[in-house]
Amino acid sequence: MIHGKTIDQIKVGDQAAVSKTISESDVYLYAGITGDLNPAHVNEAYAEQTFFKTRIAHGMLSAGFVSAILGMHLPGPGTIYLHQTLSFKAPVKIGDTLTASVKVLEVIAEKNRLRLQTVCENQEGTVVMDGEALVSPPKKPKT
Amino acid sequence: MIHGKTIDQIKVGDQAAVSKTISESDVYLYAGITGDLNPAHVNEAYAEQTFFKTRIAHGMLSAGFVSAILGMHLPGPGTIYLHQTLSFKAPVKIGDTLTASVKVLEVIAEKNRLRLQTVCENQEGTVVMDGEALVSPPKKPKT
Amino acid sequence: MIHGKTIDQIKVGDQAAVSKTISESDVYLYAGITGDLNPAHVNEAYAEQTFFKTRIAHGMLSAGFVSAILGMHLPGPGTIYLHQTLSFKAPVKIGDTLTASVKVLEVIAEKNRLRLQTVCENQEGTVVMDGEALVSPPKKPKT
Amino acid sequence: MIHGKTIDQIKVGDQAAVSKTISESDVYLYAGITGDLNPAHVNEAYAEQTFFKTRIAHGMLSAGFVSAILGMHLPGPGTIYLHQTLSFKAPVKIGDTLTASVKVLEVIAEKNRLRLQTVCENQEGTVVMDGEALVSPPKKPKT
Repeated sequence: MIHGKTIDQIKVGDQAAVSKTISESDVYLYAGITGDLNPAHVNEAYAEQTFFKTRIAHGMLSAGFVSAILGMHLPGPGTIYLHQTLSFKAPVKIGDTLTASVKVLEVIAEKNRLRLQTVCENQEGTVVMDGEALVSPPKKPKT
Repeated sequence: MIHGKTIDQIKVGDQAAVSKTISESDVYLYAGITGDLNPAHVNEAYAEQTFFKTRIAHGMLSAGFVSAILGMHLPGPGTIYLHQTLSFKAPVKIGDTLTASVKVLEVIAEKNRLRLQTVCENQEGTVVMDGEALVSPPKKPKT
Repeated sequence: MIHGKTIDQIKVGDQAAVSKTISESDVYLYAGITGDLNPAHVNEAYAEQTFFKTRIAHGMLSAGFVSAILGMHLPGPGTIYLHQTLSFKAPVKIGDTLTASVKVLEVIAEKNRLRLQTVCENQEGTVVMDGEALVSPPKKPKT
Repeated sequence: MIHGKTIDQIKVGDQAAVSKTISESDVYLYAGITGDLNPAHVNEAYAEQTFFKTRIAHGMLSAGFVSAILGMHLPGPGTIYLHQTLSFKAPVKIGDTLTASVKVLEVIAEKNRLRLQTVCENQEGTVVMDGEALVSPPKKPKT
């Protein structure tokens, strides 16, 4: 059985991260799935007239990388995602390489909950998104 | 030039919504884009052993519909997405039909900001996700 | 219940439009869905030898934007698509931004039908496709 | 060099066909590419209330199979697609197996043009779409 970390295997300061270069196909598939065809994301002729001068990725796409870490690495499979705050700080352009990372801020053992800092940075170290997650890590498997 | 609503065209209580049935391909493409191959989403043999008995959609996928409304309808193109809180309340199964909706809670004209309630419900009216968004609607186009 | 415009809400001259930059992934996914792997669309080595010097999008992909307008905006949900003529006038290159638009040419109230002009232009205003659509807008919902 | 049939290699009555079962992912990807998220295609809760009782494929998706035949088989690579008429006759449900076929109706040698009948049928032989295509087959390669 695939199993993530239980709360007694996690301590404040633990970290995990994932990285990916955002491709045009990532942005276009995300637009198709969510129906978010906002011209800022899929209309270059429009986007050239905007402050950013080119199409940008959906902010919420970056949030998916945070979810990937929580569900796959820290705590990992079996985690229940309870709450997330997200501040969008800077645009993500097609071709940017994002690194999402999470760090444990608080271990609330009696409630089986973790509070984590969640950050997403681009290849220049600019924070494009940050916030906090609240999750319930998987319980110990019955033996 | 495509242009969303400016703050003087929006009042407390204004609403907009989008709906979609979540397909297996939505979940798989989302997994591919974000790298979130958590077995709860893409491993049916694993998922059968879990509390939910079947694969569930990524919670953060639902958040994408909220973003779609904000960027396309209310306020629409030109909106800057500043902040979002998300509480995940219930699982979304493949085949569920989600309706995401936003409602204006506060118009902060002097800062050109809107605070909105953001909710995502399934076909039975169960709230699967809720929270609040803070956005900056597009400024009046220069004449 | 989501509901498009009924025939008494539509008059000659009414218009609607959508825009999108055609990405390589759009062309490749369309090729995969339809099986249209014509080398003009997916073989750059071949396409360099052709008159157009590069891969071009499927003409019928542009027609999908016309369908999107009819089914989502004018008349909108509930519309029955009856007939379409399509003249392909100019190639669409990957990276071109298309604007599809429809305009009501005739309201045939006694048959609940609309005849519409359908045009697709690129970012330079070149018409890449035009034609006419015949649709049956949604009937008035029963009260 | 890949090369389709030239006009002297084609005669009235020549035929070609392709077949495919329409999957949910075909419909969803097509919706994403074209932005056609008409609820008839992607909202099962809505579609259950309609005459067809379930989600149906985009009519224009069927037209893509006609284009696939013309560009890949008859006449094949190098063909220029000039004109198409489309009558949508019956709905296509997810899981239906479509067979698209074209038959040469007229060879207009002096203009290097072909007029073809274009039909799309489901697994029960019901015509879901028909019409006519006008194409210019590839010229003889220079020797």
